[in-house]
Amino acid sequence: MEKYRIGLIRVATTEDPDLLALHGRLLESYFPCFQVTSRCIPDQHEGIHDDGSMARALPKILALASKEFSGMDAIVVSCAGDPAVRELRKELSIPVIGAGESAAAAAARCGEKIAVIGITDEAPEAYLRILGGSMIHYGRPEGVATVRDLMTEEGRKNALGLARYQKSLGAEAIAIACTGMANIHVQEEMEAETGLPVIDPVFCEGFFAFFELQRRRTRLN
Amino acid sequence: MEKYRIGLIRVATTEDPDLLALHGRLLESYFPCFQVTSRCIPDQHEGIHDDGSMARALPKILALASKEFSGMDAIVVSCAGDPAVRELRKELSIPVIGAGESAAAAAARCGEKIAVIGITDEAPEAYLRILGGSMIHYGRPEGVATVRDLMTEEGRKNALGLARYQKSLGAEAIAIACTGMANIHVQEEMEAETGLPVIDPVFCEGFFAFFELQRRRTRLN
Repeated sequence: MEKYRIGLIRVATTEDPDLLALHGRLLESYFPCFQVTSRCIPDQHEGIHDDGSMARALPKILALASKEFSGMDAIVVSCAGDPAVRELRKELSIPVIGAGESAAAAAARCGEKIAVIGITDEAPEAYLRILGGSMIHYGRPEGVATVRDLMTEEGRKNALGLARYQKSLGAEAIAIACTGMANIHVQEEMEAETGLPVIDPVFCEGFFAFFELQRRRTRLN
Repeated sequence: MEKYRIGLIRVATTEDPDLLALHGRLLESYFPCFQVTSRCIPDQHEGIHDDGSMARALPKILALASKEFSGMDAIVVSCAGDPAVRELRKELSIPVIGAGESAAAAAARCGEKIAVIGITDEAPEAYLRILGGSMIHYGRPEGVATVRDLMTEEGRKNALGLARYQKSLGAEAIAIACTGMANIHVQEEMEAETGLPVIDPVFCEGFFAFFELQRRRTRLN
């Protein structure tokens, strides 16, 4: 089977090629039929973590998609805030997938009491919209305001503590609202500690990219 | 890669082996890594289409799952009403997937105005719960009250007419709330006629079975 070519957009600038390719390599391991090309937006090392950083990222994402990703089968915006996803969908005829909408939709299937963990003050738009009244708690790990804070021992410990707290509130599943958590693989520890399904936006963005591509392929047959 | 063994439950009795295996064969074509065993509940040729038929089916589904599906990797209940899904999930340690919750979750990603087409008076529970205020219309094709009505020329024509009407209401996507529509492949015609994504519960039940199994497999590695 020919591989699906996926263009993946990272919304935090990095000069480290391994960190740049991290989400793409995860997707290739989950979905062996994917061949992922990763690019990051320029001049934004702190990523997207509030309204200002979201606004600065938008034009950069649109420029990057149009410049770098011709010939791709799908574009994945690897950020739980789904920046520019709606705009790109209007412009392009290929599937455009956001990490946030994907994780929120997958979490909606997991029960009626879903907790969400992110790094912003409020849950990203897609989680609020899709989970609605099923979102029983949203929280940010103590001391964590950017993706880089997550990558410290303290950030990791506080993320695990928050997951335990959300379980104590009766959550049936935990949805992660920051793709940077995939950088530290904390979702597997959260699952082990809480025994709950922990929904990872990086896995989900790949999953819905596969969904859209496989749907189209089977339609054409 | 070793295939995933899927036990699939049809909620309409049939003696026709091709009709029995229809959803399973579709899943195998969408997901070549699946090997599907299909079984139907006894003495219920009219399927599930109202509260009474739902109540009669429940104990039959539980009995069938425990008797016929030991050694499976996952169980799929191929009905948009998700009958016995919650109960089976409590009893079993393998993933249990309902068609309704799967289609509703996938549709939730498609926009803020989702229309739903089914054969019951009201939309099935998972569509109401997951789509919430995003469900702008629910309808049943004229003259269609059971899966068998759908399989007539009239049933098919009226289902297509309803899809066109829902597009005129501003729907961004149409979610099908009856797996029997896969029997007649009407979703592909709906997509061609409306230009909207039409979310098929049979495709989606396979998709979330793959989601759960692939999640577990990649966790174990």
